[in-house]
Amino acid sequence: MITARVEALRTWMSAQGIDVLVVPTMDPHNSEYVPEHWKCRQWITGFTGSAGCAVVTQDDARLWTDSRYWLQATEQLADTPFILMREGEDIEIADWLFNALLESSISKKFRVAFPADMMTPELYSELFVHCSAEACADDPFATLWTDRPAMPLSKAEIMPVELAGESAEHKLQRLVEWLQNEKKTSLFVSELSEICWLLNLRGNDIPYNPFLICFFRADVSGRHTLYIHSEQITPDVALHLDALNVEVRPYEEGLAIQQNRLTEPVEASPIAEWRACKNEAEQQGFREAHIRDGVAMVRFLHWLETSPIPSEGGVLVDADNNTITEMKVDEVLTAFRAEQPGFCGLSFETIAAYGPHGAIVHYEATPETDVPLEARSLLLLDSGAHFDCGTTDITRTIALGELTDEERRVYTLVLKGHLQLANLVFPDGTTGLQLDTAARMAMWREGYDFGHGTGHGVGHRLGVHEGPVQIRKNLRGCTTLPFHAGQNITDEPGVYVPGKFGVRIENILFAVPTESTSSFNNFLRFEQHTLCPYDLRPIVVEMLTPDERRWLNDYHAHVREVLTLLLPTEEERQWLADATRAI
Amino acid sequence: MITARVEALRTWMSAQGIDVLVVPTMDPHNSEYVPEHWKCRQWITGFTGSAGCAVVTQDDARLWTDSRYWLQATEQLADTPFILMREGEDIEIADWLFNALLESSISKKFRVAFPADMMTPELYSELFVHCSAEACADDPFATLWTDRPAMPLSKAEIMPVELAGESAEHKLQRLVEWLQNEKKTSLFVSELSEICWLLNLRGNDIPYNPFLICFFRADVSGRHTLYIHSEQITPDVALHLDALNVEVRPYEEGLAIQQNRLTEPVEASPIAEWRACKNEAEQQGFREAHIRDGVAMVRFLHWLETSPIPSEGGVLVDADNNTITEMKVDEVLTAFRAEQPGFCGLSFETIAAYGPHGAIVHYEATPETDVPLEARSLLLLDSGAHFDCGTTDITRTIALGELTDEERRVYTLVLKGHLQLANLVFPDGTTGLQLDTAARMAMWREGYDFGHGTGHGVGHRLGVHEGPVQIRKNLRGCTTLPFHAGQNITDEPGVYVPGKFGVRIENILFAVPTESTSSFNNFLRFEQHTLCPYDLRPIVVEMLTPDERRWLNDYHAHVREVLTLLLPTEEERQWLADATRAI
Repeated sequence: MITARVEALRTWMSAQGIDVLVVPTMDPHNSEYVPEHWKCRQWITGFTGSAGCAVVTQDDARLWTDSRYWLQATEQLADTPFILMREGEDIEIADWLFNALLESSISKKFRVAFPADMMTPELYSELFVHCSAEACADDPFATLWTDRPAMPLSKAEIMPVELAGESAEHKLQRLVEWLQNEKKTSLFVSELSEICWLLNLRGNDIPYNPFLICFFRADVSGRHTLYIHSEQITPDVALHLDALNVEVRPYEEGLAIQQNRLTEPVEASPIAEWRACKNEAEQQGFREAHIRDGVAMVRFLHWLETSPIPSEGGVLVDADNNTITEMKVDEVLTAFRAEQPGFCGLSFETIAAYGPHGAIVHYEATPETDVPLEARSLLLLDSGAHFDCGTTDITRTIALGELTDEERRVYTLVLKGHLQLANLVFPDGTTGLQLDTAARMAMWREGYDFGHGTGHGVGHRLGVHEGPVQIRKNLRGCTTLPFHAGQNITDEPGVYVPGKFGVRIENILFAVPTESTSSFNNFLRFEQHTLCPYDLRPIVVEMLTPDERRWLNDYHAHVREVLTLLLPTEEERQWLADATRAI
Repeated sequence: MITARVEALRTWMSAQGIDVLVVPTMDPHNSEYVPEHWKCRQWITGFTGSAGCAVVTQDDARLWTDSRYWLQATEQLADTPFILMREGEDIEIADWLFNALLESSISKKFRVAFPADMMTPELYSELFVHCSAEACADDPFATLWTDRPAMPLSKAEIMPVELAGESAEHKLQRLVEWLQNEKKTSLFVSELSEICWLLNLRGNDIPYNPFLICFFRADVSGRHTLYIHSEQITPDVALHLDALNVEVRPYEEGLAIQQNRLTEPVEASPIAEWRACKNEAEQQGFREAHIRDGVAMVRFLHWLETSPIPSEGGVLVDADNNTITEMKVDEVLTAFRAEQPGFCGLSFETIAAYGPHGAIVHYEATPETDVPLEARSLLLLDSGAHFDCGTTDITRTIALGELTDEERRVYTLVLKGHLQLANLVFPDGTTGLQLDTAARMAMWREGYDFGHGTGHGVGHRLGVHEGPVQIRKNLRGCTTLPFHAGQNITDEPGVYVPGKFGVRIENILFAVPTESTSSFNNFLRFEQHTLCPYDLRPIVVEMLTPDERRWLNDYHAHVREVLTLLLPTEEERQWLADATRAI
């Protein structure tokens, strides 16, 4: 099947006079989750991973992807024309293109092309360092991919100003002032989350991301343009946009503008930074969202501890003798969340990873991988939801029964790092690279570390992974940006022991000024919005410092105080009292 | 006097057709301590601080300096033609020059000049962003500064290969290979410490820095050149250089090459990085140097605790009723150090700062500022020495009697930070910016912070402040370089309470591999070379974590074990036993 697709693509390339076609995993908005409509790389290669870039010539076909996916790609690319290229080990795409160009240019001019709507200026400058490339005049996938999913066309909805905390009018006014100060006439915005934030709009075009697929152009004159499929604009939204002096134009016009910008330097924009600093109403919405999410989490944890029973083989089953699997966990937890008021959907695909699956950082239970839980080892559960007033993202690692010493030790090291970061006090302007150390010191001392980031920003009923600031151990733009009051960040250290188990513990923190002022610096601390007990059972109490024990007990007392009266049953309230007891 | 000097300079400028003369604090080697010969900025302004840049025109004269020196400069510039420019608050020199140029260029061509031997490529590119500038054809200070100190001309000495751990021949061979790999024909080196390290030479041209004033040119052919005053080359050194295929040429030839490089991009050099990684012999030399230094420090601390007695007014006096002052402390400590074998001199000016003086970060006791010690508050003592085999740099803060709660609390916070950094385990490649957090977390939590760096490299009988790696909270080149095994760094957090007291505690640490390997990362830990008790009396023991108490007690046991038998008297041995008792 893949071979036939590649053959058809090559025929099309010949007809168009294209020597090399580059097919990235990309939509024109640099979205984290690429909508089905733009999954052309997946369609042409058969590789279903979330990251990768295909390159096709008349006699060669390659797929580059990162180490998370090498095993999966090897399997999925077998019996296809594609050769797997290991990012970080094999030659980079830019250099490979350069070599191909060198070889070929002797005989003739060499044309490199890409689908016009699958490129951003950032990616363009990364891929085409050593050669020029052009957008395809016609979209190959429009004709070749006959059952290609349509563009999503969800209805736009207005985010009420009581929840947004700032009117779209005021945000646009700030942007016009910014343009004036920067002596610019306009700003073209392609990032969906920035546009939704700016216009106080939400949509449902992308799974887990309440975005609308659109472009926006702000003009210093105050007359702005939204490029979107007109079917998505309800009468209410039309009025809202009209009042903002925002003209609605066809999406394709925006796409054409974006395509003309590909080779230009990336424009500076203040929106990501503004969006990162949550206002009072947004913070209050997050607090409320976390109360609802906390109730759902506590009800789920009570269910998990009291409802499944070990069968003779040790596998957990429910009262009807149905096996409790990872996917069942997701189902039950999602049902508890869906009962909460204002629930708008999950904020990302639940990770319910039992035992050795916990060590696979991007594990997602599918019917093929799903396993039953047993009354031993650890369940890693990373999940979250969008509520009307805010977004959640929480990870708990839960003991299902007897644990090994290594499991208890690693759990405690991760908890120590999590508590140290959550309870840090730090000068305003401290960067993610500096904060990262606090979360790792304890595990480093015992020879453990983890490869993923320690924290990311969370959007206000927007993307659960929101820039620009991150906490991680790598020197990057996102880890050298200053933290200020109002910004939020997840606190999610982990340790993954391959073939055995994984531990991750995650809360959402908000940077707030400290109560006391100091003549030495302006200090910030974190307010913890997440409300859910940490599993006490795996903790090796002697490994905690007195401070860490106090922080843990204080947090648990706070969780108990806020959630107890919101739990519907006395059993659940009793369970919470026990789960949050002082240790 | 200053006015007359400026007048003379202006007359000279007129004659030369120079509109603006820039006089930086600089020698042609970018030395940390500028030799007396090059203190032209001090001579023309009367300002004696260690940092600053003067700019003189026919009708204007200004001195830029940083906040450490604003008070001192205000006093010293009174009754001179110079206006103080506050770095970080007032306009920058580059912009001021641009404005001056704009104003003047209407009427005529505008010439900016600087003394030819007081500029480096780095400084040139910083000062002359918006205008061009030229080196003076004649040196104004050669004629105007009639009693100008001569160039220092100390005799070169050979660092024995047993102490250097690598022959100069081998170092030069590495450099030639580097040139080959980089496809370069030569490398011109102006940094004195790099040349001394490379050729295994030492000198005495600069106070506290055992350097020779020279330039070096490495050539890919293996035929190299040292530009130095020939009087400095002894017959032994001549043979040593001859064997290395290094031709000796006049210093002025090197200076001329350096002057031709001013506007060229700064050349990359591998020497600083090689020098930073101390080999086994160098590490062993540092260990030995720290044993000798530890004996001197312990003998001094014993003297300070037992010898001075409080007079009726509370001032400390010796048996002959002479007041014990800050300068006396320096004198006694230096005498103990000088008794040690292989002592070559202090590695920097001793900082003995009592009470409120401790809060002045760059305090240096002079006859004008010197104060008697009293039987209360804290003495901050930062000192070090060069020995034949290595260099030391240690700070202890010592209780002289009763302390306030604030003094005890701050002392303990600084000690906690110092212990956390010294006992950190961290992945190979971690940067100074990441390590810094460990030293500050405890004090941040209580609202304290400090402005200086947390750690700097230490040369092997070379500069006590040695690049390229530093630990500090600022994002800079030096804080984003990776740490590797063999590198050393000071660990010197502090807190300074203005008008009251200062606390700093400093040891030298060496990065070494951890004993156990881990599948998660390659980890390093620090070996502490400094051997001297921390004052136990100011510690609020309840503020230490169990780990911190254990680290402190283990360190003290180690100090006791290494030093006891090397102390000459039973009283000193007893004192050490008590000073290193477990708490």
